[in-house]
Amino acid sequence: MLTIGDKKFQSRLFLGTGKYPNYDIQKKAVDRSGTEVLTFAVRRMNIFDAEQPDFLEKIDLNKYHFLPNTAGAKNAEEAVRIAKLAHASGLCDMVKVEIIGCSKTLLPDPVETLKATEILLAEGFTVLPYTSDDVVLARKLEELGAHAIMPGASPIGSGQGIINPLNLKFIIEQAQVPVIVDAGIGSPKDAAYAMELGGGWCIIKHSGIWSKRSSPDGRSDEASY
Amino acid sequence: MLTIGDKKFQSRLFLGTGKYPNYDIQKKAVDRSGTEVLTFAVRRMNIFDAEQPDFLEKIDLNKYHFLPNTAGAKNAEEAVRIAKLAHASGLCDMVKVEIIGCSKTLLPDPVETLKATEILLAEGFTVLPYTSDDVVLARKLEELGAHAIMPGASPIGSGQGIINPLNLKFIIEQAQVPVIVDAGIGSPKDAAYAMELGGGWCIIKHSGIWSKRSSPDGRSDEASY
Amino acid sequence: MLTIGDKKFQSRLFLGTGKYPNYDIQKKAVDRSGTEVLTFAVRRMNIFDAEQPDFLEKIDLNKYHFLPNTAGAKNAEEAVRIAKLAHASGLCDMVKVEIIGCSKTLLPDPVETLKATEILLAEGFTVLPYTSDDVVLARKLEELGAHAIMPGASPIGSGQGIINPLNLKFIIEQAQVPVIVDAGIGSPKDAAYAMELGGGWCIIKHSGIWSKRSSPDGRSDEASY
Amino acid sequence: MLTIGDKKFQSRLFLGTGKYPNYDIQKKAVDRSGTEVLTFAVRRMNIFDAEQPDFLEKIDLNKYHFLPNTAGAKNAEEAVRIAKLAHASGLCDMVKVEIIGCSKTLLPDPVETLKATEILLAEGFTVLPYTSDDVVLARKLEELGAHAIMPGASPIGSGQGIINPLNLKFIIEQAQVPVIVDAGIGSPKDAAYAMELGGGWCIIKHSGIWSKRSSPDGRSDEASY
Repeated sequence: MLTIGDKKFQSRLFLGTGKYPNYDIQKKAVDRSGTEVLTFAVRRMNIFDAEQPDFLEKIDLNKYHFLPNTAGAKNAEEAVRIAKLAHASGLCDMVKVEIIGCSKTLLPDPVETLKATEILLAEGFTVLPYTSDDVVLARKLEELGAHAIMPGASPIGSGQGIINPLNLKFIIEQAQVPVIVDAGIGSPKDAAYAMELGGGWCIIKHSGIWSKRSSPDGRSDEASY
Repeated sequence: MLTIGDKKFQSRLFLGTGKYPNYDIQKKAVDRSGTEVLTFAVRRMNIFDAEQPDFLEKIDLNKYHFLPNTAGAKNAEEAVRIAKLAHASGLCDMVKVEIIGCSKTLLPDPVETLKATEILLAEGFTVLPYTSDDVVLARKLEELGAHAIMPGASPIGSGQGIINPLNLKFIIEQAQVPVIVDAGIGSPKDAAYAMELGGGWCIIKHSGIWSKRSSPDGRSDEASY
Repeated sequence: MLTIGDKKFQSRLFLGTGKYPNYDIQKKAVDRSGTEVLTFAVRRMNIFDAEQPDFLEKIDLNKYHFLPNTAGAKNAEEAVRIAKLAHASGLCDMVKVEIIGCSKTLLPDPVETLKATEILLAEGFTVLPYTSDDVVLARKLEELGAHAIMPGASPIGSGQGIINPLNLKFIIEQAQVPVIVDAGIGSPKDAAYAMELGGGWCIIKHSGIWSKRSSPDGRSDEASY
Repeated sequence: MLTIGDKKFQSRLFLGTGKYPNYDIQKKAVDRSGTEVLTFAVRRMNIFDAEQPDFLEKIDLNKYHFLPNTAGAKNAEEAVRIAKLAHASGLCDMVKVEIIGCSKTLLPDPVETLKATEILLAEGFTVLPYTSDDVVLARKLEELGAHAIMPGASPIGSGQGIINPLNLKFIIEQAQVPVIVDAGIGSPKDAAYAMELGGGWCIIKHSGIWSKRSSPDGRSDEASY
């Protein structure tokens, strides 16, 4: 069983909420996946931007835990501000620190990620930092008190799967907190591989690459064993 | 839906019957996997060798189709003889031609496999040859009339997964009959990968590598989507 | 030292003669590579097709051995006919049997390759068959008497390098004759890898992929250690 | 041509000085490699530890540039102290910051590496930090003023070659300073691959893995094109 902070989960899968053709298909995919945790970017919420539609309108909010992320933040200060906004919305059981350090590759900024993690932990958040697969960096995040570590498998949206299984294995072996493989999971085999490395959990988005391999009705639950 | 000869299957998984700690765990694993096809070596049957225990004693024979293989055969003649023995047992809905050409690597003999396939087809068998991932060889087997093609992912028992996805993709794209990825499937990610390549089916054995990643009660159904 | 039939070579590299921008660059590349063996398709020779230019016009024919190949052949009969044409030209110290079994992937036909190898050996040729990386097939070619085995690294012209190092290793370990890794070598690292696998030799073509990594004056000798 | 700080090099290879059977073989290997830069750990110098033999006793010190590294340092302070010791020896044209953050995997500490790089640059050293393949970290090191970036291919001494070519490619593409692929280069193919990725340079050690593939007289110059 997965324990993050004071919460316990049965499902080994975190699921993204975007990229679905419509909210009915989104609802079906979320239901069938068996996930207990939904992720989304705070900047897509209408609390952040009133022009945004309510992308969770079809979802039964009582059934899930929420892991908003700070996508769009370029430094620790912005990430902290976004996290507080999420907290104000009530849809923030945990927060994923996501600070992109390179607009071309979308890879994370290690120094700002450490900084934001430290600040948010001090403010009482349950913090799950998205990080590169740098092994020593992952340990430093855990030493700060991060509740889980979320190393990327490959660049966000690339669907390239796990490029460096050795580093992920090292991160998983050294960690006392859960390791959730994030970013680049492109197909069920990648999700299965993440779980086999011993972490036991991974996060997927309903990306184009992924949905091509899903069934015609949009379900993306192939990897939700 | 998978169609082989005159049979239709819903499950995308063929399951081995050996390597379980005992027959109760074997039964549970087979049940939970949702498979419709069980595979086994004829030489493990007590029709072949009266000293052998009945390894199917716990299995409800009416619930499954059977794919015995000719393991142990070193040439076409031996494979044909073993296939006929399986047929005589009544547990032979299909036959997997398996002729090992190299005792060290356990890789198949292309020439003898072609020969045995031709003979058994002429005798009315539903024939699924186990073959290397040689693309032109796979096409020749199909041209002979093979009902499915079973290319190896990597050497038997190696658990190395899919070494050459390109060849498997070529074999799957050219084939009009089902392609069932066989041999070397070492973990759920490998099974998922085989299915993603477009073949849609694979065969697994309950090997040591595999069971280590199963749950404590011996179920091996992680890959049985 | 490499011994094929009754010839001995110091260089570990066979070099293609085509795909150069012009014959001056071809000459430079051949000289600098240190190769002792040049390969070419018989169908590019003007003995095969009088309309063809003499692509060896700048090459000092006394300095090299020649390995013409039977590219274009779709079966054993055609390959034998092309090999005899090469022999008639005087530029045929050895012959590479190349019989394509699939026009899309350009992968070789195992059955026709066996047949042509047998015929040409009986006629006294020094025969080097191009083959897939099927391990048992490679052994059968050697058992027929082939003077070297030329397994492909990946499809011809794909530049994908060595996809299945395990099979190449098996082929090299079992062989008593030289193994020359052929087809798909796309860059110096691939050539180095082929040599490290223990075969010690490989064949390269001056393909587009390769030349991009060469120096501006067209030399392609990075891999010719 | 490679330019690091105010120095220019023709050779694309940096060579380690340890792990040779004896100093005569070391001398031969260094000579044949064509390298212009020798690397070594300061802690192996007799200025650091008077008990150490002079491992450069056979080397003509006027022919080479020297890149001592701070191996053994566990934080920035120790690395700075070791670098100053190297400088005092006169054998320090450049310094490689090497701060191990994990004694099991020998992977580098990103935070301490940033800190030591900043301090040594302020003191006027020519600094080449050894780092993980974290892309944003590499950019931060360059922004500090590092004269070259030395990302690891895989863990030190593992000989696993380049595990994540994508990250190395990103690092090379973004860098205005040279990128020298370090650590884990296990064979000539790995060195060739590092060069093909566009960095153009790599560092090798004469490790056991490497020397097995060298010729019997100990030369390790297969990769020194």
